[in-house]
Amino acid sequence: MSEPFHQPVDAAVVPRFAGLSTFMRLPAVASAAGLDIALVGIPWDGGTTNRAGARHGPREMRNQSSLMRRVHHVSRVAPFSLANVADVGDVSVNPIDLLDGLARIEAGIAQIVEAGAIPLCAGGDHLTTLPVLRAVAKGRPVGLIHFDAHSDTNDAYFGGNRYTHGTPFRRAIEEGLLDPKRIVQIGIRGSIYDPDEHGWAREQGIRIVYMEEFVRRGPADVMAEAREIAGGQPTYVTFDIDCLDPSMAPGTGTPEIGGFTTREAQEMLRLLDGVDIVGADVVEVSPPFDLGGMTALAGATMMFEILCVMAGNLDRLREEAGGPA
Amino acid sequence: MSEPFHQPVDAAVVPRFAGLSTFMRLPAVASAAGLDIALVGIPWDGGTTNRAGARHGPREMRNQSSLMRRVHHVSRVAPFSLANVADVGDVSVNPIDLLDGLARIEAGIAQIVEAGAIPLCAGGDHLTTLPVLRAVAKGRPVGLIHFDAHSDTNDAYFGGNRYTHGTPFRRAIEEGLLDPKRIVQIGIRGSIYDPDEHGWAREQGIRIVYMEEFVRRGPADVMAEAREIAGGQPTYVTFDIDCLDPSMAPGTGTPEIGGFTTREAQEMLRLLDGVDIVGADVVEVSPPFDLGGMTALAGATMMFEILCVMAGNLDRLREEAGGPA
Amino acid sequence: MSEPFHQPVDAAVVPRFAGLSTFMRLPAVASAAGLDIALVGIPWDGGTTNRAGARHGPREMRNQSSLMRRVHHVSRVAPFSLANVADVGDVSVNPIDLLDGLARIEAGIAQIVEAGAIPLCAGGDHLTTLPVLRAVAKGRPVGLIHFDAHSDTNDAYFGGNRYTHGTPFRRAIEEGLLDPKRIVQIGIRGSIYDPDEHGWAREQGIRIVYMEEFVRRGPADVMAEAREIAGGQPTYVTFDIDCLDPSMAPGTGTPEIGGFTTREAQEMLRLLDGVDIVGADVVEVSPPFDLGGMTALAGATMMFEILCVMAGNLDRLREEAGGPA
Amino acid sequence: MSEPFHQPVDAAVVPRFAGLSTFMRLPAVASAAGLDIALVGIPWDGGTTNRAGARHGPREMRNQSSLMRRVHHVSRVAPFSLANVADVGDVSVNPIDLLDGLARIEAGIAQIVEAGAIPLCAGGDHLTTLPVLRAVAKGRPVGLIHFDAHSDTNDAYFGGNRYTHGTPFRRAIEEGLLDPKRIVQIGIRGSIYDPDEHGWAREQGIRIVYMEEFVRRGPADVMAEAREIAGGQPTYVTFDIDCLDPSMAPGTGTPEIGGFTTREAQEMLRLLDGVDIVGADVVEVSPPFDLGGMTALAGATMMFEILCVMAGNLDRLREEAGGPA
Amino acid sequence: MSEPFHQPVDAAVVPRFAGLSTFMRLPAVASAAGLDIALVGIPWDGGTTNRAGARHGPREMRNQSSLMRRVHHVSRVAPFSLANVADVGDVSVNPIDLLDGLARIEAGIAQIVEAGAIPLCAGGDHLTTLPVLRAVAKGRPVGLIHFDAHSDTNDAYFGGNRYTHGTPFRRAIEEGLLDPKRIVQIGIRGSIYDPDEHGWAREQGIRIVYMEEFVRRGPADVMAEAREIAGGQPTYVTFDIDCLDPSMAPGTGTPEIGGFTTREAQEMLRLLDGVDIVGADVVEVSPPFDLGGMTALAGATMMFEILCVMAGNLDRLREEAGGPA
Amino acid sequence: MSEPFHQPVDAAVVPRFAGLSTFMRLPAVASAAGLDIALVGIPWDGGTTNRAGARHGPREMRNQSSLMRRVHHVSRVAPFSLANVADVGDVSVNPIDLLDGLARIEAGIAQIVEAGAIPLCAGGDHLTTLPVLRAVAKGRPVGLIHFDAHSDTNDAYFGGNRYTHGTPFRRAIEEGLLDPKRIVQIGIRGSIYDPDEHGWAREQGIRIVYMEEFVRRGPADVMAEAREIAGGQPTYVTFDIDCLDPSMAPGTGTPEIGGFTTREAQEMLRLLDGVDIVGADVVEVSPPFDLGGMTALAGATMMFEILCVMAGNLDRLREEAGGPA
Repeated sequence: MSEPFHQPVDAAVVPRFAGLSTFMRLPAVASAAGLDIALVGIPWDGGTTNRAGARHGPREMRNQSSLMRRVHHVSRVAPFSLANVADVGDVSVNPIDLLDGLARIEAGIAQIVEAGAIPLCAGGDHLTTLPVLRAVAKGRPVGLIHFDAHSDTNDAYFGGNRYTHGTPFRRAIEEGLLDPKRIVQIGIRGSIYDPDEHGWAREQGIRIVYMEEFVRRGPADVMAEAREIAGGQPTYVTFDIDCLDPSMAPGTGTPEIGGFTTREAQEMLRLLDGVDIVGADVVEVSPPFDLGGMTALAGATMMFEILCVMAGNLDRLREEAGGPA
Repeated sequence: MSEPFHQPVDAAVVPRFAGLSTFMRLPAVASAAGLDIALVGIPWDGGTTNRAGARHGPREMRNQSSLMRRVHHVSRVAPFSLANVADVGDVSVNPIDLLDGLARIEAGIAQIVEAGAIPLCAGGDHLTTLPVLRAVAKGRPVGLIHFDAHSDTNDAYFGGNRYTHGTPFRRAIEEGLLDPKRIVQIGIRGSIYDPDEHGWAREQGIRIVYMEEFVRRGPADVMAEAREIAGGQPTYVTFDIDCLDPSMAPGTGTPEIGGFTTREAQEMLRLLDGVDIVGADVVEVSPPFDLGGMTALAGATMMFEILCVMAGNLDRLREEAGGPA
Repeated sequence: MSEPFHQPVDAAVVPRFAGLSTFMRLPAVASAAGLDIALVGIPWDGGTTNRAGARHGPREMRNQSSLMRRVHHVSRVAPFSLANVADVGDVSVNPIDLLDGLARIEAGIAQIVEAGAIPLCAGGDHLTTLPVLRAVAKGRPVGLIHFDAHSDTNDAYFGGNRYTHGTPFRRAIEEGLLDPKRIVQIGIRGSIYDPDEHGWAREQGIRIVYMEEFVRRGPADVMAEAREIAGGQPTYVTFDIDCLDPSMAPGTGTPEIGGFTTREAQEMLRLLDGVDIVGADVVEVSPPFDLGGMTALAGATMMFEILCVMAGNLDRLREEAGGPA
Repeated sequence: MSEPFHQPVDAAVVPRFAGLSTFMRLPAVASAAGLDIALVGIPWDGGTTNRAGARHGPREMRNQSSLMRRVHHVSRVAPFSLANVADVGDVSVNPIDLLDGLARIEAGIAQIVEAGAIPLCAGGDHLTTLPVLRAVAKGRPVGLIHFDAHSDTNDAYFGGNRYTHGTPFRRAIEEGLLDPKRIVQIGIRGSIYDPDEHGWAREQGIRIVYMEEFVRRGPADVMAEAREIAGGQPTYVTFDIDCLDPSMAPGTGTPEIGGFTTREAQEMLRLLDGVDIVGADVVEVSPPFDLGGMTALAGATMMFEILCVMAGNLDRLREEAGGPA
Repeated sequence: MSEPFHQPVDAAVVPRFAGLSTFMRLPAVASAAGLDIALVGIPWDGGTTNRAGARHGPREMRNQSSLMRRVHHVSRVAPFSLANVADVGDVSVNPIDLLDGLARIEAGIAQIVEAGAIPLCAGGDHLTTLPVLRAVAKGRPVGLIHFDAHSDTNDAYFGGNRYTHGTPFRRAIEEGLLDPKRIVQIGIRGSIYDPDEHGWAREQGIRIVYMEEFVRRGPADVMAEAREIAGGQPTYVTFDIDCLDPSMAPGTGTPEIGGFTTREAQEMLRLLDGVDIVGADVVEVSPPFDLGGMTALAGATMMFEILCVMAGNLDRLREEAGGPA
Repeated sequence: MSEPFHQPVDAAVVPRFAGLSTFMRLPAVASAAGLDIALVGIPWDGGTTNRAGARHGPREMRNQSSLMRRVHHVSRVAPFSLANVADVGDVSVNPIDLLDGLARIEAGIAQIVEAGAIPLCAGGDHLTTLPVLRAVAKGRPVGLIHFDAHSDTNDAYFGGNRYTHGTPFRRAIEEGLLDPKRIVQIGIRGSIYDPDEHGWAREQGIRIVYMEEFVRRGPADVMAEAREIAGGQPTYVTFDIDCLDPSMAPGTGTPEIGGFTTREAQEMLRLLDGVDIVGADVVEVSPPFDLGGMTALAGATMMFEILCVMAGNLDRLREEAGGPA
């Protein structure tokens, strides 16, 4: 059967441990031209205030993604048959100059967007989402569905530094990249700096679903609300791996006990079905702190979950537009 | 108090870290003669297509089983008082000749069966279940209660190779060892090769309970159906450790996030009570990928759970037959 | 804003990886004088019958507690604003003389109690709770809310040795330190030595909530009963880290699969609100068996949860008494 | 400056943790056409009789080779300026059929040889050297300079199996691929099966330099003899990572204490200068048993050492032939 | 070929990862009766003042000793053909009562000595050597060849405790078990408590060879002196694994950088040839601090080195006495 | 015996695992006033171009330094009796602003220098040495004895960034902090970017002793030359832990095989005796990449070696000046 799109290497022909390591064993391509969805690495953790290491995330998520197969067992979506997907490599970064790092990431993602592809990014720390949004939301603020233990809407650290992995969403709102009324943050938990730490976020209109509320309501109910907040408009999805419990994602810089199980997270991501996703990322996978690749495997699988939703949506749009690819 | 059967070494006399390492600190015996249940290792992973290592499983499950005590805290079953149980060592294997390996395993298990004991096996990869079934189900197909992330009913890999850890149950059905109408697979999940990957299995009559169905229904309901499928007839129980979540069983070759908790798995195994178990195994524990012995401890405890059910059943049969051991 | 009490180092000024390592980045003080709550380490595991290592627990819990912030995200309690809290260091111990070790620990905790502070202890194995109770419950038996996989009410090991980490609560009852009618043990599970192993405990009036009962009833219901058992009287809280599932707390000497999630444990600790806590501990964190500091992080966070409840209670008492803060 | 040949990615532009992982950050190419030296992975350990895992060796050696720079600091050889070198990926393998595996490896290497390139291979277990020799030494036996803890000239295992990682050089001599008079084995040590275990090897004329002789004589003297044995004729170089001390190469299947330091091994490889190397490999790097990538780093660096010698030799030949570079 | 003595399981028939784990894959026997040399475990670390864990040493040395083969590659000694050797299991211990622990160990070793066998012990911490000497040197002081980073001749710790792993040789001299004039300590290094810390030892006549002297003189010269000190009289050999460099033996309680290489240690042990060894041990292997089994492998190999010397000596005595066993 | 200076906690009273973790168990003091030598942490790795993590170095070197005792076993120097030494904590850093980070470190060290103490620093990456030199060498260039695998005299990375851990010594020379004629670099090795990579360094007059020259000449000869280069003038000593072999110091960002043994490094540091050391550091210990604390232990011991030389020198100066101690 000939497939119109890029296909992963067949694991019944080439074992999973063989061959160069790319996202989901897809071809590595030089540019996003012709792609519907571009898998891209952002190996940068310049915004990390405590335990660095997310710069190594893309390589290990590529390695662990070799365990992915072609079809989603619940939705039966076969993403590589519905959309043209490939690994476009890593964007250019700068590990020792924060502002230059941000500029390079923005430029790299902008190339993907300009080529007409949707970026599905493997971070990197959470500050990488800021330059991605600069590329993706240029000209019009987008919504945000945000899975995380932390709100990441702080203002400054260390004598006024405004760009850290604790501040990206405050900056993005200030820069007009996000519509705060269309932001939902799910899984927030852990001790905080100030009783009113999330006051600014709430004032902007951000909806914060603390872990305790999630436990009471369950994935389906919470995601129904999240889809409503996204409101059928262009939306970015960001998945900070520390939303998961540290037993399932130990390899991250700021672990908080009491997190999501992977089962809960997968159920929520599947319920993104129908959301108009203009870009997405999985961030804060930090291999130096990982145990046996467990966190990178979780991250790679979450990328696959998001990819299946994206590809299903694209396919539906194509059908509505009158026909297959 | 004198016990009629083999007893574990007393941990209030000999500490758990002392002495030779056997399953549950039982005596090592030369043959299964006189035993009701034989604990046996199958140190072989010749069917593994990706990450090998389950060959080291029996040794580490022995080591971790030193943490087991004598009595089940829920059922109050004291298996070593109800049945004669011992460690019969490992069957002979061949790490570099697949077909010879299968033959040796079958021969080793056949000796146990012929001695009148029920084998409770510590694998090894999942292909080891095939030769065990050849020994246990010789002459009459048995039922199967199968806990796993994967159906393991594929046909072939790598240019037509028919014996891998992804194919044992297709082979067993073809060989008349299993009655496909009496097979239930629980916990299946993870990306698949083909939208119809499980089509063959379903056509044979296998009942597949995906993880998502399990989450909706819960252990009690699912196991009620499983016992009904087993139908009071001779049944084999196979427990692939990758049915558990990788956070609880990282030491395995093909981890899939979103798995069972150990609590769920224990509840299901306890609900095997009353099933006519003619053999059982715990497979795919792979120490080179394990973290701190966590997977081997889970495997050893699952063996203890199955053992308690087996021993309880044997005791009931004895009582029905009119008398004590 | 000037704070009347000791405050943690500010992580927006001094990164979490910098500076000497104390509990929750609080000042290290020479004595408990002037404190409301004393965080204290008990680096001792002389009662451990299998895998030692809890002697290293306090150091690693200090290290991991650097991730704590100042305010509880659910109760909004800011413990360091409501109570004077500091790190008083470790009590004196003796790693090679069991009875002298017990005496030194008792003396160290007695100094804290005499200074008018409530001790919140980081063990150490569970035998350390015995000398702590000797200091805290001198003269009047207290109640006990006890989270654990094991009842720890055995009598003797190894030829009559009466002081091990499996016996502290039998000794404490015998010594009149605990009122057995006001003891509740939650999370008990795992294979046992004898069908009637918990018979002595039940005869004394101890209420044992096995894990299976907990799963059926849930945290809120169980803790309602626990608070009733405590009965508004002085109560000690002891949290053996092995009550958690080994996937979340692998670094402990006697792991038992099928344990609490951290989410469940946190919910229960928060429901201690209102209990008259005269002392508390988190024990059996064993760094040599830990994975990536995961267990020490769980232990440190549980200390923070208990601290917030303690501080909230103190504040309420002060308010009732008409006082400051 | 424009380079005529493939160049590694510049680490002052792209950090070492960024980009797809290839050998020494060279381009991945589809075939060996046009190359002087082909870096190739052989992800196969089908001949391993104890601890498997060398199948994962190529991926991790690629990862660790990202630490290599362009120029040898002693010889000042810049291999990528003297020879056209690239990463041709992995040969096809079969993890579950030994004989098919051998055939596929031979075919893969034959393509490289036929394209006119010299293969520099990353194993895989030591049995992979046999099919490589079948491709490289077709029609004329070659010499062998062999660094190893083990002679690997046994005859059979497990009931007559003749192809394991303990037998490749006996098979290669029997098949006429190696001239036993031109074989030298260096570093042999560790307990042996039989007092005359190396008798067959010595009868063939193989020169065995035990570790103890090496310690007495030193690298320079031993390598002078080795070069003499090679005799200016075509010679294969095989480097089993277990020749190194386990403290420097823990990630291997059959460690033997008392091995070479990396310093000694590097000195010996540099003294291969002038040897007519027709192929080479670094084998038995087993990532599941590695610690922090240490063994893969040693393996990758040894590949770089061999590469520099190969490239220097090619350059000399070209100069003698009057050509470019 | 029929062997008169116990033989290891053949690794060309049973793979090294298969079967119950005993020292060097020898039979496990119930008593030392009929043995020439008894391999025995002493799983006890009750004298450890800092990092415990050597209690787990025997189990892991058994596991790693599965890599041993039958014949020494340098001396060509085949110990299992020259002497009757077996694994007699572990002596009884008491992990929570120091003095009872010492008494049990002495009793266990005394049984071996009384059966006429020489004990070759796997510790355990270094205090275990004291009760072994009480059994072995009863009635006549013996000499001591002692490889270690520490002299272990301190007097007391923690308020006068006289039995720790830092005091065994002072106690043994005081008890008349060792002739201090026939003691040599080799490899001593690392910071010390007092400028005259070794003064007491020197006053007794102990010869201390610091690491720096060893580096200057080399193994052969130092061992010539050691053999002279032993003086052809009954001598005990004790090998504290921390004499090795921590890179080669990280799994120990008191590591000191700058230690022996395994190559140096092996050379020294081989030079024990001819010493009248009445008992020996390898101690302080601490698996919880080990990395990949490296330390246990070193320990097991050192046991094999000592065993080969012991067996060679026994054989020589037999020959002198006129014939084989 | 009363000591005039700060003393470490006595390990025969307080076990090594107990108490707050400071350098060598010395008191933590608020400032360097009154100290002769200040032990100070620099938790910063803002100049790291590949694998970050040295920011965590001070904490782990403090932890491992708990194994140090009071007296040097070769020189018999008792540093805490000869000089007033304490732990002054960590300097202020900024993990996300490189230039601010450099300024803070300089300010922190300047306080120590102005207080009249000599700083002995625990890094941190090698760029931290630049601001230390700015504080220590203000006004007069000093000499440098530099142990390292890398020359660290590169010019720029990533589009002209001039401050990375590959450039500190070029910057220091340009800033007039170092006299290039009095610089010796020992242990340089590993592949390089350019055949003339060290050309600039040599042109300035820096003496580079490659590892190969060191192996030929040995520690004594090389250090005789180094002392001559230092020339009795004020000299800074910098010890990059990656000068050690990765088997002995795996926890570092840029490992190079073929390094110093710890024995060689210790011998060299002892031969600093008599050098006028105005400051020193041990850098590039990176705990996230460490194995079992091995690298931090090596780093802490090297600090102790340097401290003993410093204290011996101070004592000699005092004696020459006719003063106390």
